[in-house]
Amino acid sequence: MSQFPEPLARLIRQLGKLPGVGRKTAQRLALTVVTWPPSDVEALASAITVARAKIAPCSICGGLTEIDPCRICADGGRDQEIICVVEDVRDILALERTHEFKGLYHVLNGSISPVEGIGPEELRVKELLERLRNGRVREMILATNPDVEGETTALYLAQVVKPLGIRVSRLAHGLPVGADLEYADEVTLSRALEGRRDL
Amino acid sequence: MSQFPEPLARLIRQLGKLPGVGRKTAQRLALTVVTWPPSDVEALASAITVARAKIAPCSICGGLTEIDPCRICADGGRDQEIICVVEDVRDILALERTHEFKGLYHVLNGSISPVEGIGPEELRVKELLERLRNGRVREMILATNPDVEGETTALYLAQVVKPLGIRVSRLAHGLPVGADLEYADEVTLSRALEGRRDL
Repeated sequence: MSQFPEPLARLIRQLGKLPGVGRKTAQRLALTVVTWPPSDVEALASAITVARAKIAPCSICGGLTEIDPCRICADGGRDQEIICVVEDVRDILALERTHEFKGLYHVLNGSISPVEGIGPEELRVKELLERLRNGRVREMILATNPDVEGETTALYLAQVVKPLGIRVSRLAHGLPVGADLEYADEVTLSRALEGRRDL
Repeated sequence: MSQFPEPLARLIRQLGKLPGVGRKTAQRLALTVVTWPPSDVEALASAITVARAKIAPCSICGGLTEIDPCRICADGGRDQEIICVVEDVRDILALERTHEFKGLYHVLNGSISPVEGIGPEELRVKELLERLRNGRVREMILATNPDVEGETTALYLAQVVKPLGIRVSRLAHGLPVGADLEYADEVTLSRALEGRRDL
């Protein structure tokens, strides 16, 4: 065994294609999987195939869904006049967990990053503008990440959307709840000061 | 989408069973996989199934192999009189990469750990003793890890095997090549002193 037997080597190669999985991790995963009961292995393999076959982006919001349009877009009970723009499908989940937002979503699938050569054309911006032009949206909440790319994306979208007469808002910046003021970075602290509210 | 659609949720659950894969990692992996080209997804799923079906422990050494006995055990050109005892199948690979060892291997599948309730009965010790009694092995090299469990396992095996009239040796402890003496821990340094060799 100067190297792994071929079926194992192949599995290691395939697992190594997953994001964040290097050679060592792929080896560890592969060596575990081959010792699992066959039924568990079958469950994993079939979950992979089934998920890929059944899950697709919602043709409206871009979130992942089994039925198109997705549950949120198809839910007439949700506020059709407010749309929340996020970078990633996972952000929808995070926002839904708050149980505070009852509007619709729009997934950009990334953020503007000149360094990585990602401009508005690489994101679902065209689809967003179409929705805004044809729908009855009155407010767009920009919920992109509070990092350089997210801010750039928010500024860009604000510029493009404001002329349509739609209110554009941004998630508040400030101290995370439970945080220690002493350890807050100065940018966050300046934003928290700027955004201070009367009590 | 207060939660992921079921096929995706199922994939996240299955991926979460892999070692070292938590909820967040499983989500990231699953969300990536569903965006892969179907052929890549199929390649991953089939690699998993095929590896599990074709790979099994070698009935002699316990290493993972496609054909039983494994290539090393079946290789008459290797030194049948020397056996190297390792904790894990990955250790065989590490030793093979040195191109220095031409004997046989024996995988214990772990190490003695009273804390975790792992005794010699949970390891492939019985199989090792059988090989030593029936074969023509003259030396056993203990290549268990240089940690508490590995040392305990080595001491235990030395005690059990010495009465069989077999030479028992242990991999040398000392400074790793390329290391900085200044940063070596005191235990490693004491071992390096103890094991010093004349030049």
